[in-house]
Amino acid sequence: MGEHHPAGSPEEARALAERVASAMYTRDRASQALGMHIVRIGAGHAELSMRVRADMLNGHLTCHGGFIFSLADSAFAFACNSYNLVTVASGCTIEFVAPARENDLLVAVAQERSVSGRTGVYDIEVTNQDGAAIAFFRGKSYRIKGHVIDGADKAA
Amino acid sequence: MGEHHPAGSPEEARALAERVASAMYTRDRASQALGMHIVRIGAGHAELSMRVRADMLNGHLTCHGGFIFSLADSAFAFACNSYNLVTVASGCTIEFVAPARENDLLVAVAQERSVSGRTGVYDIEVTNQDGAAIAFFRGKSYRIKGHVIDGADKAA
Amino acid sequence: MGEHHPAGSPEEARALAERVASAMYTRDRASQALGMHIVRIGAGHAELSMRVRADMLNGHLTCHGGFIFSLADSAFAFACNSYNLVTVASGCTIEFVAPARENDLLVAVAQERSVSGRTGVYDIEVTNQDGAAIAFFRGKSYRIKGHVIDGADKAA
Amino acid sequence: MGEHHPAGSPEEARALAERVASAMYTRDRASQALGMHIVRIGAGHAELSMRVRADMLNGHLTCHGGFIFSLADSAFAFACNSYNLVTVASGCTIEFVAPARENDLLVAVAQERSVSGRTGVYDIEVTNQDGAAIAFFRGKSYRIKGHVIDGADKAA
Repeated sequence: MGEHHPAGSPEEARALAERVASAMYTRDRASQALGMHIVRIGAGHAELSMRVRADMLNGHLTCHGGFIFSLADSAFAFACNSYNLVTVASGCTIEFVAPARENDLLVAVAQERSVSGRTGVYDIEVTNQDGAAIAFFRGKSYRIKGHVIDGADKAA
Repeated sequence: MGEHHPAGSPEEARALAERVASAMYTRDRASQALGMHIVRIGAGHAELSMRVRADMLNGHLTCHGGFIFSLADSAFAFACNSYNLVTVASGCTIEFVAPARENDLLVAVAQERSVSGRTGVYDIEVTNQDGAAIAFFRGKSYRIKGHVIDGADKAA
Repeated sequence: MGEHHPAGSPEEARALAERVASAMYTRDRASQALGMHIVRIGAGHAELSMRVRADMLNGHLTCHGGFIFSLADSAFAFACNSYNLVTVASGCTIEFVAPARENDLLVAVAQERSVSGRTGVYDIEVTNQDGAAIAFFRGKSYRIKGHVIDGADKAA
Repeated sequence: MGEHHPAGSPEEARALAERVASAMYTRDRASQALGMHIVRIGAGHAELSMRVRADMLNGHLTCHGGFIFSLADSAFAFACNSYNLVTVASGCTIEFVAPARENDLLVAVAQERSVSGRTGVYDIEVTNQDGAAIAFFRGKSYRIKGHVIDGADKAA
C-alpha cells in the first residue's frame, strides 16, 4: 500500500488530504448545494455534516433516502481520494436503520477499511445530532488514472 | 401474496397504483425539487425520469452518485407502495457502471422481483437517453402499518 | 464489448462457454463436493443445480445460507468466465427471501446484466423445485489476466 | 434495546450467549462439517475459525467464495442469536479483498453495529493467520418468534 502514502509523515498525509478535500469541495456543486460541510479530513478518513432541509423530505415527511446516501457518498469520495489519486465509487450498499427528520444535523464519518491494488473498501456511518445511527453505508472504490490536484505530492 | 392485490382486475390495480403515485409525488418535495417526473406506474412497477442539472455535478463533472441513487430510490418507493400499503426501504445496493453527464436524461425502471410477508425485493435499472446502463439498484422493502391514500381500496 | 465476443457466431460463443465451463467444473473440487451440476451454459449465462443435503442444514433445519450463496456464486463464476477471460468476483450481495429445506432441488440461473471494461454486473436467481424464489444474488465481476482454457479461441 | 438484554449483568449476558452458541453449534451440521470452531462468544459478538481444506478450492486453486461466505454467515448467526431470540439473516453483502489459499486458518469476527425493533446490522471481518483482510461481510438480521434454547433466560 506504499503507493497510497507517497508523502512522508502522518502530518503531511493529513495536510495533503485536507488540500485535496478543499479542492474537491470547491468543484463539487452538488455537495455545496446540499449544504454539506467538511468537519474533518485525514488520510483515508472524512467527516461531513448536512442539515436536513424541508426540500429533502419525502411523502412520509422523513428525509428522502437519496440525500442520506448523498451525504455518505460524498464522505466516501473525500476519504478515498484523500491520497490525491483519482478514485471513483464502483458500488455501494446502504442500510437505513432510523429515519432522519427536518432540521436534523446529520454527520457522516468515512473510514478506510482496506485498500489493495486499485480497489478499496470504506465504511461510512451516518448519525444524527443525538448520536443515533441513521444509516450504514459501505463503498467499494476503484482508482483510475490521474491526480485530484496538481503538484500536491511535491508541495507536500 | 393475495393481500397485495386487494382490488380485482389488472386495470384496477394499475389505476390504484397511479392514484397512489400521484398522491406520493404531490407530497414528495425532494423528488419534485430534483426534477423527477413520473413516466409510467403499475402494480409493483414504476418508471421515473430526471435530467442531470449542473448543480448535480461533482468535482469530476459527472453526476454525483447521490442523485442517481435518489432517482432509483424514488422509483423503488413508487413501485413498492403501489398497492397502497405503506412500505419503506430497509436497505439498498447500487452498482455504478457508467457515468452520467450534464443534461443526460436518466430513466429509472423499478420492477418487483419478490414479495413475501412484509418484505420485498425490487430491481431498478437506470439508463440514459441512449439506453446505456448507468446503474443497477436493488432495494429491500419493508411494509409497515397504514395506507398511502385513504379510501382508495374502496374507491377502486 | 467486442472483446468479450472474440469468436464469431452465437453457436461458437456458446460452444466456447461450454468448453470453459467443463474445464472449470473439472478443477472445481468445491462445486463438485457440494453436488452441483451444470444444467445449461451460454455466453454470459449459466444454470447450475444442487440438492440440499442433511449436512447442509443449520440449527433451524433449513439450508445454511452459505450453501445457497455457494450455488449462486458458482453460477456467477461460470457465467462471467464464459468468454474464456479469467474473471473473479469482487463483491456480491444476496437477499434471502424463503428458506430451502432438506432434499430441495435448487437451481441458480446467472445472467449478465452489464459489462464495461474489466468489470461486470451479473444477476443470479435461486429457485427451488416448485419455482419459488429462494434468493436473489448480484455479483460484481473483475476481469484479470489470462484465459481459462488454452487455445480455445483458436479452436473455436 | 432493553429487550435484547433481558438478563442482568454483562457476565450473565456473555454466559447466555455462550450457552446459546453451544446449542446452535450442536445442531448445526453445516458449520461442523466445514470444520468451523467457536473462538469467542459474547452479547452481539462472535468469533469463529475455519481452516481452508483442499475440497474448498475452486478452479483457480483459491478458496471458493461460498466457504468464506459460510464462515462469515455462521459468525453472523451466532452473534445475532446471542440474546437467545431467534433471528435470521434477511440479506448480506460481501466484499472479497484478497484470496484465501489451502491450509489458511481463517477467522471471522462478527460485531453488532445496530439493533432497532426486529432488525439489526452486523459487520463481520474475515482475516487469515497473518491478520490480512480476506473479506468484509455485512449482515442484516430479522428477529422472528421464539427462543434458541428453552429456559435459558430464567436459568441465567
